[in-house]
Amino acid sequence: MQLSIIKIGGNIIDDEVKLGAFLGIFAAVPGKKILVHGGGKLATKVAEGLGIKQKMIDGRRITDAETLRVVTMVYAGTINKQVVAQLQALGCPAMGLTGADGNAILSHQRVHASIDYGFVGDVDSVNTSLLTSLLMLEKVLVFAPITHDGKGQLLNTNADTIAQELARALSASFDVSLVYSFEKRGVLLDAEDDSSVIGRINATDYAGLKARQVIFAGMIPKLDNAFAALRSGVKKVIIGRAEELPQLLAGQAGTTIIHE
Amino acid sequence: MQLSIIKIGGNIIDDEVKLGAFLGIFAAVPGKKILVHGGGKLATKVAEGLGIKQKMIDGRRITDAETLRVVTMVYAGTINKQVVAQLQALGCPAMGLTGADGNAILSHQRVHASIDYGFVGDVDSVNTSLLTSLLMLEKVLVFAPITHDGKGQLLNTNADTIAQELARALSASFDVSLVYSFEKRGVLLDAEDDSSVIGRINATDYAGLKARQVIFAGMIPKLDNAFAALRSGVKKVIIGRAEELPQLLAGQAGTTIIHE
Repeated sequence: MQLSIIKIGGNIIDDEVKLGAFLGIFAAVPGKKILVHGGGKLATKVAEGLGIKQKMIDGRRITDAETLRVVTMVYAGTINKQVVAQLQALGCPAMGLTGADGNAILSHQRVHASIDYGFVGDVDSVNTSLLTSLLMLEKVLVFAPITHDGKGQLLNTNADTIAQELARALSASFDVSLVYSFEKRGVLLDAEDDSSVIGRINATDYAGLKARQVIFAGMIPKLDNAFAALRSGVKKVIIGRAEELPQLLAGQAGTTIIHE
Repeated sequence: MQLSIIKIGGNIIDDEVKLGAFLGIFAAVPGKKILVHGGGKLATKVAEGLGIKQKMIDGRRITDAETLRVVTMVYAGTINKQVVAQLQALGCPAMGLTGADGNAILSHQRVHASIDYGFVGDVDSVNTSLLTSLLMLEKVLVFAPITHDGKGQLLNTNADTIAQELARALSASFDVSLVYSFEKRGVLLDAEDDSSVIGRINATDYAGLKARQVIFAGMIPKLDNAFAALRSGVKKVIIGRAEELPQLLAGQAGTTIIHE
């Protein structure tokens, strides 16, 4: 059975018009599906409004207790519920979840030699039995990027990671297509040239392109993650613009990454 | 099949120690159960922090667009997810919901001749099929007092009303005990005397007590609602202190309100 897992980030979340248009497209995608949303700029805005200073190290938010409170509010409250309500209005039977709900995603607080990331979670396990049951009830799941450690602690968790861990875990029961939405039209050979999209790439192609250093450096972690997902059973990973979601799923736009 | 629906309010939500203790008791209640939580003072605090002025008319919050954003954040984000994570840590398979999730509770924006309550919802229907499925999956449902109108609008909705509407709707499939937690030990004959709790009251008793004006006036709307719930199929309504939940459910504390 097919399952599409689609991750959208700040470029969609932060723009009411883009988000509305995307949700229209998402609602129309046939079959079983899961949407994973990131946070966007609203959390920063709310934190500033409440006088909570944001600490960033290497582009990553350091989640102290106050910041965790803000991201939980904004991601699991504002954004998740607005997305769910809008999807419901489109006839899409959406149900919002964090990793704490039904113990959907269990994680542990990140341990790092030199940086204290604070209340940031690295995923340990996905409750596939719960998620399969909900998908079988014809629900469309909408994940906020918050998980828990099973000991009462909520944890801020990267939305790309959540999408990937859901895809891996659910690959045991579904043919999973994992879509990362992105500002660019796909994986580009030339970051400056939007028409240089690679339509389809496998592990051998990738090794060759990497050796020749023709892959835009910023794409390498995304592609490494994509191949890791494929190695753990995900059918295909697709990278492209959210606006082209139906074409991405049909292999007519973006970059489709396959194992062989 | 038995189902306990328990509503807790601000006196528990606002006090971290009381909430922790209550969740310990709640987690230990056997059988199928639903927790409905109110909002408490945190929403007011966050609104003040963000410089959003709160308008109240007759003790009711007027929910303008900005206030709706805050209550959605705080109720569906902060409070709901913290309660769910704490219950999970206690081995209780909690899952948080708003009325928008899975279209669990559909409402319409309140229309009132003289007062514009703003984005406040009056409940139209409960998705019993979804809720029954989730209860059958052994999930313990935790409702935040937010619903939706099916057209993309979230609506702030009274938690007592949500508890009552869930109880009514689920009475078709379950023997529902509806518990309203309260600062007092139960319905008191004398508001000043905590030992004047009426242990058990039926419609005939109530009519008599009301005629003799011996019921504390503040209790009348609560009792009228309780009898309305009983008339629509709820097995019993119990009013008392959250700290005594097991005793309330066993009829050993608080006031049990029954039809006959």
